[in-house]
Amino acid sequence: MAVLNVVLHMDDPDAKRLGIGLTNLENLIRAAGGPAHVNAHFVVNGPGVLLFRGLQPDLAERLSGLAEAGVHFVACQNALRAKGVDVSELPSGMKTVAAGILELVRLQQEEGCAYIKP
Amino acid sequence: MAVLNVVLHMDDPDAKRLGIGLTNLENLIRAAGGPAHVNAHFVVNGPGVLLFRGLQPDLAERLSGLAEAGVHFVACQNALRAKGVDVSELPSGMKTVAAGILELVRLQQEEGCAYIKP
Amino acid sequence: MAVLNVVLHMDDPDAKRLGIGLTNLENLIRAAGGPAHVNAHFVVNGPGVLLFRGLQPDLAERLSGLAEAGVHFVACQNALRAKGVDVSELPSGMKTVAAGILELVRLQQEEGCAYIKP
Repeated sequence: MAVLNVVLHMDDPDAKRLGIGLTNLENLIRAAGGPAHVNAHFVVNGPGVLLFRGLQPDLAERLSGLAEAGVHFVACQNALRAKGVDVSELPSGMKTVAAGILELVRLQQEEGCAYIKP
Repeated sequence: MAVLNVVLHMDDPDAKRLGIGLTNLENLIRAAGGPAHVNAHFVVNGPGVLLFRGLQPDLAERLSGLAEAGVHFVACQNALRAKGVDVSELPSGMKTVAAGILELVRLQQEEGCAYIKP
Repeated sequence: MAVLNVVLHMDDPDAKRLGIGLTNLENLIRAAGGPAHVNAHFVVNGPGVLLFRGLQPDLAERLSGLAEAGVHFVACQNALRAKGVDVSELPSGMKTVAAGILELVRLQQEEGCAYIKP
């Protein structure tokens, strides 16, 4: 099976929705036959970055586990600044990009990623 | 007009939102000049499968009518299992796929489907 | 940098969400180095057209400013008719299309637009 390219997008500070997105990734990796078959990105921007203020430990652990398996989690620096969320509050394995919206466009246009909004 | 390839995605058990998605499909088929000009898919996963527990008859009828016109409605087996929804509860014309998320990626990458999240 | 092709989609009459979409566009244009580097579309359909009944003046001004910078804002005529919203209620710079859903598919398939649902 060829590599599956995908980007998930989250801009709502809704922990239940984050859980759905993480389940999507877990199911995709299993269905694809393992993380080597998936090039997956998860971009959080807008009010979505407020998710990381006091994130439930079980969600943080699942996110970090997926990051270790190769999923690229990034938060938007514009959004972090606008919402007053510090990089130190992000879960382990999460990086940042200057503009989440540019990353979402770039991944679809340059890397041919399918877009999913959980 | 060439065939329009599209996949709609629903993961919320929100009947109003399902109605919007069905209207989207009805309008698309009319605007395209009939069902022969449309290759349309509708993927339901996550908590969205709870829609089919006691679905309003008018929505079930519209869905089944679109399925007869050629729209491919599928529910995610992972989600059905996780939410305890039985295949017998699905409306007429709805099928299942092993992993809804994989179907959403596949349709975009292999069939060139546009993605719409109603 | 090549031109970035993108379409944002809104079908919820949620002013906060409209604000997020406008911020997305403002951030994208800045990150891309100016409006000449962006081919951006914003399609409003379904109940989303109710946004324009009594839109807050600050949101209307931001939208009109982005339209002057070249963003293509369109509302779905099917939705305007169904919700009883008159074209005269739309903010300055906003146009209409016969079927918003067809425009969303067309922009992705014919213009290679990335899709974003704020």
